[in-house]
Amino acid sequence: MSTKGHVIKCKAAIAWEHGKPLVIEDVEVAPPQAHEVRVKIVATGVCHTDWEYLHGRGKGMKFRKFPLVLGHEASGEVESVGAGVTKFSPGDKVIPLFLPQCGECERCKSTKTNQCRKNWANTQMGVLADGTSRISYQGQQVYQFIGVGSFSQYTVVPDTSLAKIRSDAPLDKVCLLGCGVSTGYGAALNTGKVEENSTCAVFGLGAVGLAAVMGCHAAGAKRIIGVDINPDKFAKAVAFGATDCVNPKDHCKPIQEVLMEMTGGGVDYALECVGQPAVMSSAFESTSDACGTCVIAGWTETEGLTLQIEKLLLGRTLKGTYFGGWKSAHDVPKLVDAYMNQKLKLDEFITHTLPLDRVNSAFDFISRGESIRTVIGLWSRSEGPTEFRAPVAPVDDVNEFSTTGECEGSK
Amino acid sequence: MSTKGHVIKCKAAIAWEHGKPLVIEDVEVAPPQAHEVRVKIVATGVCHTDWEYLHGRGKGMKFRKFPLVLGHEASGEVESVGAGVTKFSPGDKVIPLFLPQCGECERCKSTKTNQCRKNWANTQMGVLADGTSRISYQGQQVYQFIGVGSFSQYTVVPDTSLAKIRSDAPLDKVCLLGCGVSTGYGAALNTGKVEENSTCAVFGLGAVGLAAVMGCHAAGAKRIIGVDINPDKFAKAVAFGATDCVNPKDHCKPIQEVLMEMTGGGVDYALECVGQPAVMSSAFESTSDACGTCVIAGWTETEGLTLQIEKLLLGRTLKGTYFGGWKSAHDVPKLVDAYMNQKLKLDEFITHTLPLDRVNSAFDFISRGESIRTVIGLWSRSEGPTEFRAPVAPVDDVNEFSTTGECEGSK
Repeated sequence: MSTKGHVIKCKAAIAWEHGKPLVIEDVEVAPPQAHEVRVKIVATGVCHTDWEYLHGRGKGMKFRKFPLVLGHEASGEVESVGAGVTKFSPGDKVIPLFLPQCGECERCKSTKTNQCRKNWANTQMGVLADGTSRISYQGQQVYQFIGVGSFSQYTVVPDTSLAKIRSDAPLDKVCLLGCGVSTGYGAALNTGKVEENSTCAVFGLGAVGLAAVMGCHAAGAKRIIGVDINPDKFAKAVAFGATDCVNPKDHCKPIQEVLMEMTGGGVDYALECVGQPAVMSSAFESTSDACGTCVIAGWTETEGLTLQIEKLLLGRTLKGTYFGGWKSAHDVPKLVDAYMNQKLKLDEFITHTLPLDRVNSAFDFISRGESIRTVIGLWSRSEGPTEFRAPVAPVDDVNEFSTTGECEGSK
Repeated sequence: MSTKGHVIKCKAAIAWEHGKPLVIEDVEVAPPQAHEVRVKIVATGVCHTDWEYLHGRGKGMKFRKFPLVLGHEASGEVESVGAGVTKFSPGDKVIPLFLPQCGECERCKSTKTNQCRKNWANTQMGVLADGTSRISYQGQQVYQFIGVGSFSQYTVVPDTSLAKIRSDAPLDKVCLLGCGVSTGYGAALNTGKVEENSTCAVFGLGAVGLAAVMGCHAAGAKRIIGVDINPDKFAKAVAFGATDCVNPKDHCKPIQEVLMEMTGGGVDYALECVGQPAVMSSAFESTSDACGTCVIAGWTETEGLTLQIEKLLLGRTLKGTYFGGWKSAHDVPKLVDAYMNQKLKLDEFITHTLPLDRVNSAFDFISRGESIRTVIGLWSRSEGPTEFRAPVAPVDDVNEFSTTGECEGSK
């Protein structure tokens, strides 16, 4: 029996309150309204940003309303479409987009930005264009994180917040293009515009950072220095193209000074993929004072960054990036193609796969710094064996990314 | 009798201590050493930076050693050359360069920077390559401000710190290309890369700011908004190409919010030409959050700038500029050509001309916000009539550039 036009009852992981584990609940997902698409979510990555919004209040993140379905890095199939939807049909393989591309607004028409104006305020509040979400629990509205909410077997998104991808794409891999990999890869290629034979440093070797390393490598950088306080991530960074890896904890001086010495005056490009002000400062100061570019790909909403102005004035550039500068609906299918043509790695980011009812384990892996990406199979059975691949070792505190040198000699 | 090879006795304005008026003294200027050129200074602008270094200690500027000959925006003629100098001959018209261009270092060979590595540390300390200056007073070394020291009838500079210009250039005008005008003009054209039909805001309408307005105009910007707390500067800004002028004091809300409203979401390019952290923040936040570029052309050495990181992340860019990004020895002669061909204004910057022995009046004009540029004629006679042109009216305190709104309603 077709589900089209009917409310769908399915499983979702709900965040009921700040800092508490998610709870698997039976939710109701309403049919899509005009210019909306209901998507059967097949796979979703668990991004550090999901973790941050659950745990990070008061530590850089703004408050989001609860109850909330987190998850925003996903893939699935179109279940049904609302009135007026012309670009999608049931069965299409798709990637939901937290950054829409309406194609019609001034910013969509500009080549200088990917910041579509459509529905921004609403999606940030966890609702769709009409100010409500399509997911409910026993009659209570459940918010859809940044307009997606992919920790649910079904969700509904505007037709401007969806990329149609090729039918042979493996959904349990390409979901990563919904956020982290695209963000880091594009931060290097689109925002930084990393040049051939340049020298780069990537701060933070999680999924975004590794994707940034991959972007620098794709751009032809001759030297790519990975920086992380967890040396167990270094082997993976090298696999993605890093030529050197540095642990700030191994040095008595600030990491920016170490990088200055390693490169004889600073890197051409530094990519901050952590989201911490101190790391941003270090990344900025690790670039060449004459013409270095620092791209901030890490995310924080309430914190400030203090720069020594003198360090900017000789010619440094500081840039922000959002979704790696990609025009979402247009570019995500091309990134899927790149993966299918072996031009872009995805499998190597996935350290764990879990069924939905073990989603809290994915958050625990992030808390302990054990994962790069966990992919949640929304329809996997929890009783089956869970796959664990190449976990990286834990660090003391994933949130404490020291850049100031903590070796014995400095104490 | 030729002065070549001899010590020259001449007049110079010496800064003996921080915050005190300059004193006209008889100094001795040694012959140029190898790869140095002795220049008869004909005219010099008095730049806000000269004022800052005399008065600004503890307010953004580092300490410079005294006694010191200030002045770094000058023009003159080659008097004699040291051994090994091949590019200059006595009688050549020249502009001294506080930013050298050796043409041989890695940075000179790069198209991405104008930051020649030659002698940087020495010139910042007020000495030449051998660690000493060529100016002395009764046997005591007198430092040459940023390697120039143009408040002296003669000075000596390295042959890599000098631009040869066409012989028909009026030295009492083109001296302004030694710093302020080049800095602001290039900040717009080279660093900001202002685009045709774009919207710009220029913060601070002194010489650097007016030159930035001129640069935005040359780039074809369709809207150029001048921002200053001294409305008497607005007419001049319009003459340079400003389409609107705004006084933050006329508004109850922060100036960045005013500009956001005026432009429907922010300017494409903001140029900070004041050198104050609060103004830099305002300029940064006045740009489009999606793709705005803020160029910091104002100078401060010890202060910090705190940015709200969230305001960077959607796609803003913050850049520093030094000497407007021009390759000094190569580009200054071209800027002189542009002036001679009426492509670039210089006369309009000059509000006052004074002889050397009235140099302190030029500092007073800056203190009171009365001048755009005063040009000092090093060989003018003080007994002659002093020319005063189009002085702008004083503001209460030139250093207090409010951006936060001070209208009646806000109190």
